[in-house]
Amino acid sequence: MKFGICVASSFVLLTALACSKAPSTETIETVTPESVEKIVETIDPTVKKLIDASLKSTHAYDITESLTTEIGPRLAGSEAEARARKWAEEKFLALGFSNVKTEAFVIEGWERGIESAAIVSPYPQQLYVTSLGGSVATPEAGITAPVAFFESFEALKNAPEGGLDGKIVYITGKMEKAINGAGYGPANMKRRSGATEAAKRGAVAVLIRSVGTDSHRFPHTGQMRYGDEKKIPIGAVSAPDADQLDRIFASGKDVEISLTMTPKAVGQQTSGNVVGEIVGSEKPEEIIVIGAHLDSWDLGTGAIDDGAGVGIVMGAAKVLMESGLKPKRTIRVVLFGSEEVGLLGARAYAEQHANELDQHFVATESDFGAERVYSIQAGAGDANINLTKEMAPHFKSLGIEFVEGVTTGGPDIIPMAAAGVPAIRLNQDGTDYFDLHHTPDDTFDKIDPDAMAQNVAAYTIFIWLASETDKKFREE
Amino acid sequence: MKFGICVASSFVLLTALACSKAPSTETIETVTPESVEKIVETIDPTVKKLIDASLKSTHAYDITESLTTEIGPRLAGSEAEARARKWAEEKFLALGFSNVKTEAFVIEGWERGIESAAIVSPYPQQLYVTSLGGSVATPEAGITAPVAFFESFEALKNAPEGGLDGKIVYITGKMEKAINGAGYGPANMKRRSGATEAAKRGAVAVLIRSVGTDSHRFPHTGQMRYGDEKKIPIGAVSAPDADQLDRIFASGKDVEISLTMTPKAVGQQTSGNVVGEIVGSEKPEEIIVIGAHLDSWDLGTGAIDDGAGVGIVMGAAKVLMESGLKPKRTIRVVLFGSEEVGLLGARAYAEQHANELDQHFVATESDFGAERVYSIQAGAGDANINLTKEMAPHFKSLGIEFVEGVTTGGPDIIPMAAAGVPAIRLNQDGTDYFDLHHTPDDTFDKIDPDAMAQNVAAYTIFIWLASETDKKFREE
Repeated sequence: MKFGICVASSFVLLTALACSKAPSTETIETVTPESVEKIVETIDPTVKKLIDASLKSTHAYDITESLTTEIGPRLAGSEAEARARKWAEEKFLALGFSNVKTEAFVIEGWERGIESAAIVSPYPQQLYVTSLGGSVATPEAGITAPVAFFESFEALKNAPEGGLDGKIVYITGKMEKAINGAGYGPANMKRRSGATEAAKRGAVAVLIRSVGTDSHRFPHTGQMRYGDEKKIPIGAVSAPDADQLDRIFASGKDVEISLTMTPKAVGQQTSGNVVGEIVGSEKPEEIIVIGAHLDSWDLGTGAIDDGAGVGIVMGAAKVLMESGLKPKRTIRVVLFGSEEVGLLGARAYAEQHANELDQHFVATESDFGAERVYSIQAGAGDANINLTKEMAPHFKSLGIEFVEGVTTGGPDIIPMAAAGVPAIRLNQDGTDYFDLHHTPDDTFDKIDPDAMAQNVAAYTIFIWLASETDKKFREE
Repeated sequence: MKFGICVASSFVLLTALACSKAPSTETIETVTPESVEKIVETIDPTVKKLIDASLKSTHAYDITESLTTEIGPRLAGSEAEARARKWAEEKFLALGFSNVKTEAFVIEGWERGIESAAIVSPYPQQLYVTSLGGSVATPEAGITAPVAFFESFEALKNAPEGGLDGKIVYITGKMEKAINGAGYGPANMKRRSGATEAAKRGAVAVLIRSVGTDSHRFPHTGQMRYGDEKKIPIGAVSAPDADQLDRIFASGKDVEISLTMTPKAVGQQTSGNVVGEIVGSEKPEEIIVIGAHLDSWDLGTGAIDDGAGVGIVMGAAKVLMESGLKPKRTIRVVLFGSEEVGLLGARAYAEQHANELDQHFVATESDFGAERVYSIQAGAGDANINLTKEMAPHFKSLGIEFVEGVTTGGPDIIPMAAAGVPAIRLNQDGTDYFDLHHTPDDTFDKIDPDAMAQNVAAYTIFIWLASETDKKFREE
């Protein structure tokens, strides 16, 4: 995919993945303090020292444990997200960060309600369903209707307009696993736009096979979008329930489903980004942003999405702080609010910091789980790519190689990158990420502390190298 | 464990596992039609022919797919269990079985209601909870109470009586994985008797860490029992929720939980066992029982517990039927009802067939999932064990070895075995069985068709060998 296409749709979350490229068969090396010991003897001793300290540190793991245990789910705009901001401020202060503050903004809130679904005929039984974020409700008594089956979002889009009056549209289709999450974009079309396309054709509701790669009985939630058509409710069923429906449709039988979901819009709510800094010793006005997002979906405790990112970026800055090194440039850790519902915190940050974005030296985000980083990738701009290539050998001992292609830097970096801030990405192994993504199963026990420490090492040396370089990521 | 102990507690479901013994490190050989081709050249050509046909057959898989898709969950005494009996009769007839009938009995019914739980303090968030089978309800408005933590069921039993007035008891403790499910018995004590022991001490409700070996956000249900004390509600939280609670308790903070569960007793309901036969050509009055149970818990679709068993025993008898061989003894396939709630179908069968139990030549049940059989084990009695040992070499090509120890034959065989019917067991690899057991995740997609075909081969040759032998399993 060319960079021009990435920018054109740069506000879309999917782009963060769609613009990343990596061979899906790449082997991930296991890095331990001992193996690093041998490899890094020949490299920069300061980098070696930071890697050693990172791999031994438990800050990231402890921070993620604290966030997911003490706050748990953190739906955008909710009271729990507000508690998470308070937690984040206190954690930043306790860890010794400077200029800790919350930068508030306002969003349109949404809350989940009751959700249930069942096959009425031919074979009565319950389905495991969840509302997609932003969906309108069914009537309180639910909708019972015949089901129109579509094997893919494309099949629905290719169907004639009209003709589905009074029907529930069901869209199936499996998502493929890939180290870089490349299956997410295609699978996600039905989640984002299924309701719009079904409404055009007269449908009264939509059910989709969850956008995920697991075979567990968890439906995956995630934000949807309405077009100009009538708003109809949309939910996702778990993979085993989708398999069940697919078998029944394959048998040629007519299917009737009842669906009750009572989510609601709850009006304007406060959200916010929380910021903490290590102020630069020589060029404090030049800002290196490492971000993650603080909000999560409400079903799990937001451990891999994105408690892990919160832990990794706070933990990396803390390791640098503890090293006694004084970075020349400012390291700004940004915990974005309301990412899940449309990068709202990211947009607010880009607006609220518009005047200083030209002083943003480079930006990156950790928002793809807690597995090992396997490659480093640059955003747009020749200088950026060359500087990233120059830095890449320092990451080799961690099993991280430079990879071609263009990154957005992460979902919350997209608005900044669109405004010219150079982006890089430390790409994590996301093979199993979509097993857990947006489900109740996104919980702390899924995090491997060793893999997390490798992430911390990558971020720590990145912010150190970026703070000290005499070159620039930004094209002059 | 000695046989005497097994018999003493022979009506207890757990005994079926507790009396089985096998090394937990045993390697399971993979068997394919090709590998068998070479190994069985030297063995009985009829056995070889039956193995070949079994490994190529899809009856078991198709039957299990049909049951879990067309009926789905089949709670004991429910309308769905009644539909399952109708399904079973029709399936038996369609497959060509003789003497197909349902043998009804009456049980006390129970239904699940609403279930929700949340940590109120120190860290407000939802918990994933489910009622244990047979539990009474909380008040409709729920119970909100401080929590008393116990690290094990033993710790609760060792606590002084009284002293927990007004508290919710929480019992944690992980279940260990083992090929023969040996971790189930110890872990299950808190499920069966937690409410009784907590009530003795004044508690108002009980939550337990689910009896299971997974780390998914599924609470595991399963039957509980009350003693003479006041009946208090009892539920299970998922493993990640238990981890969360354990972390909070480890921090020393006081915990308050709110719990709402509204299950109810629904009075006398009809249940039943469904039977189909291949009538013996020479000794039709001598009966070989191969069983499975038709009911399931209501959360999943009862695929591994015990749709797989239904498929395996019906499928094995069908393979023998298709072979053209005419077994001398009668092969009776029994699909027991209401196993999950206390072996009620098994007891009804033993009572209803009391007059002919002395004509039961041998009995066995498939009720431990759908993974490969790795050993054959005999019940009590020297003749039984010696005959099983003699038959064992025929199973070798399937990766199945004779194993010492005494089996009950399976949960639903226990009442028959207690009345003197010889039992054998084809032990399946149950290492991962308790990842899925009694959860919403017990669905058809979890079944490996190749492993299932290996099970069918084992049952097919067993019923053939048992129908033809001139010896007896029963002690004279």
